[in-house]
Order: sequence, then structure tokens, then C-alpha cells
Amino acid sequence: MSLNFLSDNETPIAASILEAIVSANQGTAHAYAEDEWSARLDEAFSNLFRRPAIVLPVSTGTVANAIALAVVTPPWGSVYCHANAHIQNDESGAPEFFGSGLRLVPMEGKEGKLGLETLQQTLHATKGHGVHSYKPAALSLTQSTESGTVYSSEEISTLCAYARSQGMRTHMDGARFANAVAKLGCHPAEITCEAGIDMLSFGASKNGCMAAEALVIFGQEQWRATAERHRKRSGHLLSKMRYISAQLLAYIEDDRWLKMAGHANHLASLFAQAVADNSTAILEYPVQANEVFVKWTRQGFDHLEAQGIQFQLWPGRDDLARFVFGHSTSNEDTDLLINAMSSF
Amino acid sequence: MSLNFLSDNETPIAASILEAIVSANQGTAHAYAEDEWSARLDEAFSNLFRRPAIVLPVSTGTVANAIALAVVTPPWGSVYCHANAHIQNDESGAPEFFGSGLRLVPMEGKEGKLGLETLQQTLHATKGHGVHSYKPAALSLTQSTESGTVYSSEEISTLCAYARSQGMRTHMDGARFANAVAKLGCHPAEITCEAGIDMLSFGASKNGCMAAEALVIFGQEQWRATAERHRKRSGHLLSKMRYISAQLLAYIEDDRWLKMAGHANHLASLFAQAVADNSTAILEYPVQANEVFVKWTRQGFDHLEAQGIQFQLWPGRDDLARFVFGHSTSNEDTDLLINAMSSF
Amino acid sequence: MSLNFLSDNETPIAASILEAIVSANQGTAHAYAEDEWSARLDEAFSNLFRRPAIVLPVSTGTVANAIALAVVTPPWGSVYCHANAHIQNDESGAPEFFGSGLRLVPMEGKEGKLGLETLQQTLHATKGHGVHSYKPAALSLTQSTESGTVYSSEEISTLCAYARSQGMRTHMDGARFANAVAKLGCHPAEITCEAGIDMLSFGASKNGCMAAEALVIFGQEQWRATAERHRKRSGHLLSKMRYISAQLLAYIEDDRWLKMAGHANHLASLFAQAVADNSTAILEYPVQANEVFVKWTRQGFDHLEAQGIQFQLWPGRDDLARFVFGHSTSNEDTDLLINAMSSF
Amino acid sequence: MSLNFLSDNETPIAASILEAIVSANQGTAHAYAEDEWSARLDEAFSNLFRRPAIVLPVSTGTVANAIALAVVTPPWGSVYCHANAHIQNDESGAPEFFGSGLRLVPMEGKEGKLGLETLQQTLHATKGHGVHSYKPAALSLTQSTESGTVYSSEEISTLCAYARSQGMRTHMDGARFANAVAKLGCHPAEITCEAGIDMLSFGASKNGCMAAEALVIFGQEQWRATAERHRKRSGHLLSKMRYISAQLLAYIEDDRWLKMAGHANHLASLFAQAVADNSTAILEYPVQANEVFVKWTRQGFDHLEAQGIQFQLWPGRDDLARFVFGHSTSNEDTDLLINAMSSF
Repeated sequence: MSLNFLSDNETPIAASILEAIVSANQGTAHAYAEDEWSARLDEAFSNLFRRPAIVLPVSTGTVANAIALAVVTPPWGSVYCHANAHIQNDESGAPEFFGSGLRLVPMEGKEGKLGLETLQQTLHATKGHGVHSYKPAALSLTQSTESGTVYSSEEISTLCAYARSQGMRTHMDGARFANAVAKLGCHPAEITCEAGIDMLSFGASKNGCMAAEALVIFGQEQWRATAERHRKRSGHLLSKMRYISAQLLAYIEDDRWLKMAGHANHLASLFAQAVADNSTAILEYPVQANEVFVKWTRQGFDHLEAQGIQFQLWPGRDDLARFVFGHSTSNEDTDLLINAMSSF
Repeated sequence: MSLNFLSDNETPIAASILEAIVSANQGTAHAYAEDEWSARLDEAFSNLFRRPAIVLPVSTGTVANAIALAVVTPPWGSVYCHANAHIQNDESGAPEFFGSGLRLVPMEGKEGKLGLETLQQTLHATKGHGVHSYKPAALSLTQSTESGTVYSSEEISTLCAYARSQGMRTHMDGARFANAVAKLGCHPAEITCEAGIDMLSFGASKNGCMAAEALVIFGQEQWRATAERHRKRSGHLLSKMRYISAQLLAYIEDDRWLKMAGHANHLASLFAQAVADNSTAILEYPVQANEVFVKWTRQGFDHLEAQGIQFQLWPGRDDLARFVFGHSTSNEDTDLLINAMSSF
Repeated sequence: MSLNFLSDNETPIAASILEAIVSANQGTAHAYAEDEWSARLDEAFSNLFRRPAIVLPVSTGTVANAIALAVVTPPWGSVYCHANAHIQNDESGAPEFFGSGLRLVPMEGKEGKLGLETLQQTLHATKGHGVHSYKPAALSLTQSTESGTVYSSEEISTLCAYARSQGMRTHMDGARFANAVAKLGCHPAEITCEAGIDMLSFGASKNGCMAAEALVIFGQEQWRATAERHRKRSGHLLSKMRYISAQLLAYIEDDRWLKMAGHANHLASLFAQAVADNSTAILEYPVQANEVFVKWTRQGFDHLEAQGIQFQLWPGRDDLARFVFGHSTSNEDTDLLINAMSSF
Repeated sequence: MSLNFLSDNETPIAASILEAIVSANQGTAHAYAEDEWSARLDEAFSNLFRRPAIVLPVSTGTVANAIALAVVTPPWGSVYCHANAHIQNDESGAPEFFGSGLRLVPMEGKEGKLGLETLQQTLHATKGHGVHSYKPAALSLTQSTESGTVYSSEEISTLCAYARSQGMRTHMDGARFANAVAKLGCHPAEITCEAGIDMLSFGASKNGCMAAEALVIFGQEQWRATAERHRKRSGHLLSKMRYISAQLLAYIEDDRWLKMAGHANHLASLFAQAVADNSTAILEYPVQANEVFVKWTRQGFDHLEAQGIQFQLWPGRDDLARFVFGHSTSNEDTDLLINAMSSF
């Protein structure tokens, strides 16, 4: 399908990643993550984040998120997150399942981002009274956000510092982490471990891999065994894990992950400019990563659809649509989209 | 690694399956199993089993087993299985996790197979007293078994008929289902849906695929939604499901699955003959699929290891070892193993 | 302790209920709710509600609520309730525990009551997209509410009709159900089964019993077995259930429950009048049952405390307090409270 | 009902315990175990066991067992117990429910008791291989046993020492703990904390109380909060806990618990002698507490039933019956039973 701006989940495997899979397909290898590719992950990601890291390769972001939260949250613990977070809206209760009935506490926040004051007020209002109430256990941030915006390292540090001061652990859902790093031009450590993040769901499937995500735990060696138990018990310890690990190694090698994300971000910014230039359309949020939310007329969207362009009308809205750009989105398709936009 | 007889889990992807992955990697495709490959699974497996089938592609056998059992077993229900079953010994409680605390009832059985009398006696002894006890809910059989043996269709029919007469549902763990069908030379339906099996974990990863299993539900359309919820909630609904579904389609096309399993079975039978011919070694079980369990002296096993041959000494035993043959095991490696055996 | 307006949970057992316990203490009786007292519950409550009712005696309102919700809500189902509901704020996740990770969706609502429009909007905003989202499964109302107000039968009918039109089941947390019925002067069926309520947690512990609540299921015989399983599995099937059942039978006999609740309501209304007459204090909510929420100055509350009066300053607030009147609250204590209020 | 030897669960409340309930029923008391009776439990039981003890009053033995096991066992942990244990056969999966899918490993053992060798062999056979298998976490012993026998302090010490050497924690199901202490004439500490038991479900309901059990944790202060969370979350934190705590305090005061258990034991021993004297009946197990298991003819049991004597024919057996003696069993009823036995 061309002209597909529905989701980066719909993109194919990048050639370099597929080569890594093919390259790993030589002879036998020990099963259940005892292979040589998986054995290299801890070191590779420790180097990437310039801090000791424990890495569990898994096949979806949902399971990375769910394991991370279950490791630090008791069944009577609560996880604070944005009301638009994937864990809140799109995982059918995976965190609650892995966490034996833990509770999410969703909060509103401008442009998809949580604010400190909101977090403080919500925590104050929900921390409850002893054994009768859920106990605040974790903060989960999404980077880049579900609105296509990006937290600065200062924003993350501030939120994490407060969460930690309240005895909470911190998690980042990085399904589109690469897009955030590419945007900020920072070191990946600056917006994660060095900003107070304990665990990162390091996404790769949306940005060139087939089905590969890394649950990255910073430093807390004592969490490894529990995380590995959750992975096994949920059916996520693949016998042929080498193929996931090989993807992850190739993905972070030679800055491939940032190059692919940078490409997607760039195309998104071109389209964002076209939206801004259109007198009837409005950018719903600042465009800081690879997603563009456009507020427009129904007629405008019909015009695009009539030209074969695919995008997502937002659920429950007919004046808002999302356009996502991926590692495989072509300049040609983007030009066609921009021209279609401009011609209305 | 050559001379690796540790497990079929350690084999690479078969060339034909890898080609299917590469072939599916064209452009974008809808996410979350809404792609065209996934859409073809129900029909393809309905044809394969000559009965309407619901197919959920997943990436591990553990999750296929766990979903199947959770669909038909309440939290206070029990699942009857062989004491050596994978669900009992090797899944760290995945059935209990997905089934919210269901209970497995393991039973001994000769040569890895359950007998009717044992099932009857165990059911009688454990069915308990009303609300105070677990309620028998499902029977789970493994085909081929953990001992490398194969149930006949009559054996399966007899066990399933009894289970159904007691109000139980039936599941088959078919991690090595292909090896059983190749051995029996029967139609796959004869030892599953036509023998009374409700659900099959149709394994493919051990026999040529990368990470692909099919949960096959025979007929019970009302179980589909529940099974899909479990898959999503456990993080197993891959965004890029097309790559699993494409593997499964290629796997069952042109009898590939049976040819690969037949190759593995054949090599196992050659080695079994060599064991039988050895005056000091004994076959622990009849060799009916791709696994050979050898009872031998410690010196014998040392002799093999000294020649670089890898195999699994059975946990807690130093006189028993398992040798597994896979789709990628070469005739040359098998000859070397046989010669090493014969030379001691 | 006298002058205790902290909670009706702190009241003693009413004499008539204690007599019922003593009276039941004659000789042996069959265990696990197989006794003659428990056997009479279904009929007694069917008569009380003029509709076939299934009754499970239990010892807390929390477990009654949790079982009720678990019976009708799958692990991926959601329960809509007021943001102040006991299930949301005060049960440490019992619904999530019994419901294997179900999710509560709390909603704001004036004077402790849910409004139809809010329910409609929230349902629209949270019903999500298929397998990715929680599925709306139940509506839970509290009667009388956590704010001491009471839903009319019309309000309940309207909310239940909408919930049912959306495929949801309905539950009423009736921890203070007697106070609502006493206030409305209606038949208890009019605000429960005849208004569309499927299940009622019929509270008795706060209003004269020791530890006795009835989970009342209207009509749905097929839910009985599941409810009984949850009760047993959670350790709530008491061996000597006769003592709970005897309390419940005595409680509903001769309108005792309504007389005791009416007494508490009456005292609350007297105090409410005193608050209304005070020029500096304000009633936070209309007083319709046995709870009075007073918005006042810190100095006012200090004045009461200085006279030995106990009440609850609302968590996180120093300008709001709750005064609760129970079956055992004396006219004298109430007069003292009113005088203390008036003298400031 | 007279001539009721079905179960000590069917006995009424002892007069002294009922008096304690009545006595506690004076005025208001703080809710949720914040009352003065509950506040005295830790000290009272610390004195009783001459070691610091944490006490959680609850209303059933099932919940005491389930909380105890959940506190020390992760979801992927296993609990070793006798095949006849209440947790295995009679709790419908409460341990699995509270323990999020933990697994019980039942073992056979002569006369209802576990032997060291069996435990060692079973542990060796089931401890598995790393993340793939359940991890041994706890040993649960029943004292007195389900067969009416009693472990010596040496037997308990030996089993606990081994369990602890394997990294496991230890629990005692003391539903009939009083009968064991009365039989042994020992200090209660000698067969619990001083023998290596970490947690005791101290039963009282079967021996004179209405619905009162104490979960006693020896020393491990860090387990308190977790145990309290489980109690709350399962609906077992009664608002009017004073009535349970008052029962427990009265129960252990003045050796009441031992006197009542001693009475029951004595009557059981009288009947056991009558069975021994009967030429056709056989004692299935040594009679060491308050239960007598009789192997006899169907005609013999019919003879007893014809005289209005109630007892339990063992499930699935028509040649075995259980007779239980309780605190309220009269000498007269016992004489009638003995005479009926002797006259056949």
C-alpha cells in the first residue's frame, strides 16, 4: 500500500534489520535467550546509555511496559500516567494483568505531556488512607508522547525527582523513543537514566524492526530475576530469541535507529509546514516527532481520501486526523500528501 | 554449531520459511493481525483440518497453551495432564497465570502417554466436593509426547470421549505435532478434531519457523473473542503480525511441515537403530518421533561429548540423555553421531 | 466512647441482633452455610424484595461488592462508578483482585450522585476500540451515597436503563441501603430490582449487625454458582455461617432495619438543622440519610473537639468534616452536639 | 442436633466466648482493627508463644492460610504440602487466588504426616530448571493433621530445618492446633516458632469460637504490611473487628483453648478404645487428637446411623468413616456412641 500514513506500525522491516535476521540464521544457537546475540545486549545497551543496563528482549511494547510496571508495583500499588497513555487506552489491561490488579491513575496534560503541578495535585488527591487505598508506586511517561510531542530532559528530570521523592519508581514508554532522541539531538541517557528514569521500554518495531523491543532496566540488578520470571510466565521467552536480539543489535548499531527516526521526523515536519500554511487547517499539537495531528474540515479530509491517502480519523472526532511518518515513508508519498493538502 | 542434538528449539529458520518472511516484507500492511496474511489463516487451517477452524497466530507455544486452557477453565477449574507435560514442568506457571489460578493435575503414564484408567482414577480421586474443590475442566494431551512417543488416534479418541463425558474440554499441546502426523501418516484431523480435540497448539517454531505457532480452535466460534482478549492482554498481539502469519501459511503449504518433520523423524530412527544395536545402551522409550532417549553409562556419554557431540543429560540423572533431531539436522552429523555411538 | 460521630462502623451490635446470635447458639448446626438459618435467606429476601432473590451471606461489604462485580465483569471489562465510591477509594483494589484485573472508571457527579449525561459522555469517551480497550461491563451505584444523599427511584431507573442499553450489568453498593429506604419511604424493590438493579450489596453491619452483609442477586440463577465459588475461594464461606444468617434474618424482621436507620436519619436531620441555623457553617451536601458534611472554620471544629466530640475531618481538608449518626447514637449525645454547634 | 460427630465445624460457640462477645459490645469502638481489643493481640500472643508475634485476626482458616502463603510465595513459587492438606483439597484454590497463581505440590505421607525423605525426594524431582519451573518457596504442615494425628516437635524441627536449608519459608495450618498442644502437653512454642515455623494459622472457630482465627507471624515485622494488604484487599478487614479480637483474647485466656481441646481429645480417646475393642472395626490412624477414623463394615455404619448417630462416610469410600469430637460434645452422646459401637 502506498500513501499509507495510518501508523508506523504498518511499515515493513528495514533492509538492514532484515539482513541482520538473515545473518543470524546460520546453524544452531542455544534456545531461550542463551544465544550469543542475546548475550551481547547488556553490554551494547550499557554502552548506548553509558550506564549499566539490564536488557530483556521481547516482541511487543505492551509486554515491555507490563513487565516494567509489574516489577515495581505491588497488586495494591498505583501507576500514574497521562490519560492518553498507551498503557491506559490501548493495552486492554496488560498492566493490570501482569500486575495482579494494580491500578492506573490517568491524568490530563497539555499537548500529551504531564505537568508537575497536575502530578502533585493528583497524587495528593489519590494517595488515600493507608491500607484502604492504593499506594502510589510508579510514574510512567511516554516519550515521544501520544500527541507527537517530546519532553525535554528538564521536564523529565523534574517529574522523576518529584516521583522519587514520593517513593515512586519511574518508567518510560519509549515506543517512539528514537523519534524523541532524534528530535532533541541529545544523548539517549539524558532523557532516561540521567533524568531519573528507572526502566525504559525501548521501542524498535515501529521504526524498522519486525517485532523487537528492549526492556531496559537501569542499574537495579535485583529486578532482573523478577522481570525474567514475568517474561517467561507470560509466554514471552522465545525459544529462538536470537532473531529478536539480532534485530536490536543491528538497530542500535551505526546510529541506524536515529537515522530512521530522523527521516520520519523530517517528513513529518515538512507536512506540518504544509498544514501550517493552509488557511483552513490547524496543527492540533506542536509537531516534534513523526506524528502530525491535523484539525480540519470534514471536506478537507474527504479530499485527501479521494486521492487514496490513508490516515486515521481520530476516534469520536470527525474534525481531527493523525498522519504518521515512518522509516519507510517515501519522499514521493510525502510530496503527494503535501500537494493534496495544498490543493484544497 | 554442528553436532548439536540438544533441542529442535536450537535449529535455524528453514530457507522456505525465511523466504516467506522476506516475501511478506513489501510495503505497508495493516497492523494487529488486520493484514492480508492473517486474514487467510482461518481458511487455510480449515482446509488443512477439513473442519471450520479459528486460528490465532502467536509467537510461542507457551502462550498458545495458556490461552487455550484459560478459555475453557475457570479460576476454580482444573486441567488434567501428564506429569511430564510442558505446561506442568516448563512454563513457570503460564497456565496458572492466564487462568487466574487454575490448577494442573499431573498424572504419571507409561512412555509419556496418559492411560484411560489413570485418568479415570485420578478424576475420581480429585473431583472433590462441590464448592470446596477444584472442578475438572480440561484435559491436555501432548502429541508427540515429551518422551518422543506418539498417541494413536484411537488412544486420543478414547481419552477425549471420557473427558467429554465428564464435562471437560480437550486441548492438545502440539509443539511437535508435525512429527506425530509424519509418523502416523494419518490426516491431521484424525488425531485432533475428529478424535475429540477442541483446541490445538499447532507448533511450528521447532520445525522450521522463526517464532510462529497457531492456536487452532475447532468450531467454537464463541471462544474467539475470549481468546483474542487473552492474546492482546498478555502482549501477544503483534503489531506486525503479518510476519508470523506468513510463516504459518508457508509452513503448511506444499506439505512443507510434514516433509521437515519426516526428515527429523527419519534421522532419529537411524540413531535409534544404532542405540538398539549397541550392547550397553538402551532406548528408554520407543522412538516414534524426533527424540531419542538413551539410557547408558556415564563413560558412554563422556565418549560422545569428547567428540564434540552436544546432547542433554536429563536433569537429575547421569544415566539418561536426550538426543533431538530437527529439520536442519544433517545426514552427516547424524552419521558422525551413529559412528561415535558404535565405536564405544 | 460517647460523643462519637466518626462512623456508623464504630457502633455496637443492636440488642435485638445480639439476641438473634445468642438464640442461634443452640447445639450443632451444619457447616458452610448448610444450616437452617442460611437456608431461609433466599425466601426471606425474595419476600422482602417481592422478586426471586439469591442471597449469599458474607461478613463485609467489600467482599459483597467485589463478588458482585466479578460475577458480571471479565478481566478486560470495566465498571463505571462515582469518583467517591467505596469501591474506588476504600477497598484497596478488592474489585480488581476478585475481577482478575478489571478496571474501574470513576466519574465526578454532583452531591455524590452520578448524572446520566456524565455517564453517557464517559462511556462514549472510554469505550475504546475493540480488543485494545476495556469493554464496559457494569455500572455500580451507591445508595445512600458517600455524600449522604439519596438517589430517587427515577434517577436509578434512568441510569440503569441506559447502562443496560449499552450491554452493561448493574450493581448497587448498599452499605447504607437501609438509610436510603427509610428516607424515601419507598418499597425496597422500587430502588433496586424494579429500577433495573441486578445485584445489591445489602449492608447490615453499619446499622446494628456485628458483621453481616447480604449479596442479593435478583433473578439470575446462573450467577449463583460463580458467586459461591468466589465466596469460597476468597475465604468467605464461614464454617459457622448460621451466626451471620441469623443476624440477617433478625435484621429484616419486623422492619428492624428501617427503624434503626430511621432513628439515625432523624438525628442527622436534627443536626443538619442546627448547622443550617449556624451563620458560619454550611451544609456541604443535602442531608438525606445519616451523614452530615459540614463546611466550617477550623476554629469551629476545634471548638467541638474541645468538648470531646469526635468526628472526621475530611482527608486533605481542614474546612470540611463528616458527622455520622448510627442506630446506637443517643438523643443526648445529639443534643450535646447541637448545643456545642450552636454555642459557637 | 444431638449425636452429631460430623465435624467440629458444627459446634456452637462456647459460653465463655459468647460472654466475651457480649462483653465487648459496650458503646462504640474504632473500626477496622483500630479498637482496643485488636490492639492487645500482638502482646497476648507474644506472651503465649514467648516470642515477638504479629497477629492478624481474621474470620476463617482459609484466609489465614492463603494470606500466610501469599506473603512468602511469589506467583512463580511453589508450596509443598501433604496430599490431604486442607489447602490442597478443601479451599477451592484460595492459596492460588491470593498467591496470583502459585502452585501447590502435594505429597503422600503415612498417617497424614509428611516424612523428611519424601520431602527431599519431591523437592529434588520438582525444583526444576531456572526460570522455566516453579521455585520452591514454602512448606506447609498441618497440626493436628487431617488424619487426626500429631507431629512431634522433633518431626517439625526436622522438616523445617530442611525446608529452610533449601531457602523455603514454613507455615503451619493450625485449624486444630489446640488439639495438638493438648495432646502433646508441650508449650505451644515448642511445635511452632521454636521448631522453625514462620507463620501459624491459629485456629479457634472449630474449638469454641464463632468465627475467629489468628494469623500469627513470628518475628518477621517486614511481613506485616503485606499481610495487612492481603487482608484488606480480600474483604477480610472487618469494620467491627473488636468482636473477633475479643473472642481470640478470651480463647487463650486461662488456658480455655487447651481445656476445650483436651475435652474433645479425651472423648475421642474413649471412642477410640471402643473401636479397638470391637473385633470387626479397625482404627485407620492412631488417634492423637479429636478425630477418629474407623474402618468398618457397611453394616456396622448402618447400625450406627439407625440409632441417629451422625458421622461422615469418607468421600469415595464406604468402609471408612470419620467421627469428630468437639468442645461441646457431651459425655452422654459419647457414651451412646460407644454403646452403639459395642452392641454390634
